[in-house]
Amino acid sequence: MPTSNPRLPRAAVIREVGLRDGLQSIATILSTERKREWIRAAHAAGQREIEVGSFVPARLLPQLADTADLVNYAKTLPGLFVSVLVPNLRGAESAIASGADLMIVPLSASHAHSLANLRKTPDEVVAEVARIRAARDAAGAKTLIEGGVGTAFGCTLQGEVAADEVLRLMQALLDAGADRVSLADTVGYADPAMVRALFEQALKIAGERLWCGHFHDTRGLGLANVYAALELGVSRFDACLAGIGGCPHAPGASGNVATEDLAYMLGSMGIATGMDIGQVLALRARVADWLHGETLHGTLWRAGLPRTFIPETLAA
Amino acid sequence: MPTSNPRLPRAAVIREVGLRDGLQSIATILSTERKREWIRAAHAAGQREIEVGSFVPARLLPQLADTADLVNYAKTLPGLFVSVLVPNLRGAESAIASGADLMIVPLSASHAHSLANLRKTPDEVVAEVARIRAARDAAGAKTLIEGGVGTAFGCTLQGEVAADEVLRLMQALLDAGADRVSLADTVGYADPAMVRALFEQALKIAGERLWCGHFHDTRGLGLANVYAALELGVSRFDACLAGIGGCPHAPGASGNVATEDLAYMLGSMGIATGMDIGQVLALRARVADWLHGETLHGTLWRAGLPRTFIPETLAA
Repeated sequence: MPTSNPRLPRAAVIREVGLRDGLQSIATILSTERKREWIRAAHAAGQREIEVGSFVPARLLPQLADTADLVNYAKTLPGLFVSVLVPNLRGAESAIASGADLMIVPLSASHAHSLANLRKTPDEVVAEVARIRAARDAAGAKTLIEGGVGTAFGCTLQGEVAADEVLRLMQALLDAGADRVSLADTVGYADPAMVRALFEQALKIAGERLWCGHFHDTRGLGLANVYAALELGVSRFDACLAGIGGCPHAPGASGNVATEDLAYMLGSMGIATGMDIGQVLALRARVADWLHGETLHGTLWRAGLPRTFIPETLAA
Repeated sequence: MPTSNPRLPRAAVIREVGLRDGLQSIATILSTERKREWIRAAHAAGQREIEVGSFVPARLLPQLADTADLVNYAKTLPGLFVSVLVPNLRGAESAIASGADLMIVPLSASHAHSLANLRKTPDEVVAEVARIRAARDAAGAKTLIEGGVGTAFGCTLQGEVAADEVLRLMQALLDAGADRVSLADTVGYADPAMVRALFEQALKIAGERLWCGHFHDTRGLGLANVYAALELGVSRFDACLAGIGGCPHAPGASGNVATEDLAYMLGSMGIATGMDIGQVLALRARVADWLHGETLHGTLWRAGLPRTFIPETLAA
């Protein structure tokens, strides 16, 4: 059914982050060959933005040590916008050298989480973004810099994270040279009213540079949170196939919003994603097979699409 | 965090339907003693509306044969509003005799589903509601009549169900003497945009007599759909503890929205429910134990409440 809600965007992008956010949180290590196959099939299913890995030391995350190879492969697929995560300048230099289209620099608005997770204060991360920007510009590279503000809705270590602090850091990231910023509910504390309130303020600061919403489904509110952001015109969301990932502070809890469920919600509301959900579900089945023994999430794969669902190619 | 969204209601009611919608769909039969215990504990946790069963012939649903006994028990709990489902006049007569506060008469807006499930056309159900109203008034009883319009967002048998037909039947139910009407996404086909569109029109017809939204989480959109209805001021929702129930046409799929997840979403947004979520989670654990072997759903029970969650007694 086409949307009757004039506030909703006409199109939205699902950025697949399963290969990074998902795979870094689970025990199974996928071979480079299978990761390539995942990227290839996601592209064939219509996904046009994929975060393929992270430029971190291989001793910290050996399962992501093939990131440069994956960027290289992903860049051969027509129209695919390739993202990577970088924790610091050294990672950014690798990202620039790899030819990635965008590098995400995570910042945690929770001081406690920032120190525990990144070993830097949030403002030290801002300073690092300035160095990354300088390096990018000096290299004459086009790789975009996204400042990802995490624990934006609260933190398992610190508890409350003040919205004012989140917004201050977002402004600081832009001032330091980030091309894009995003907000992440790293630990699954957000609800739709919180999303509406924070994104409303963030949009005033960043406008179209507010690039993405990253929601975890830890407590079942992932898609409701996406909907609340959609109502404000936000049109890019991170998601993991089969909802892999999870929160290390809540064992067994769901990870990111599941790509297939999000694609269904958007498609059902008549919001174009360019994705073929049947192909996405087929890929999910293959990845689930590769990840045998891991706790997977998502709902659509059990029930299948409604009889009334109109594929995008017919809806257009 | 208190809501910054002026459109959201300040308070909402979760009507527990697990004892009817949930238990009628699963294999395990709970003893009357355990059902009483469930009702008692739900009341102690602050729930004030419970659908305790269904007045249908015991040969059809033997697991609900103790409905009169449960109404009797539930009516001893202070302030508890007790609902039952009735498929026809005979059931309504039992409901009236039992002293239930409200009887829900299900109507399926899908002609095909209505014939398959109720062996009546939708308009024959409307005519039955008129007879039920006459019987209720003749008995001088106070039992309210709710016309529940099911398959309101589509049907697994028929496919599309036209919104005009849903709204026509809703008006017909009110004309036939229903005190309340509600809309149900029986098979889990709704999305937030559809919910917004249909409830907007339904509110124009029924106003405050539009009593309840009933959403299934078959495809993961249950809470997003609740949020879309909340934004229109709808403030009563059916839910099943542990998300039991499900859809007979989608084996393994989730059932109703999970009570505990919905209570968390509402509480997090500062919408008062009167419920103590800790007690609700404790009850969920007990019921999960009783239903050992059944597929349960819901998300909050794994992760627990956020550190930042403010219990209602403190928030007030």
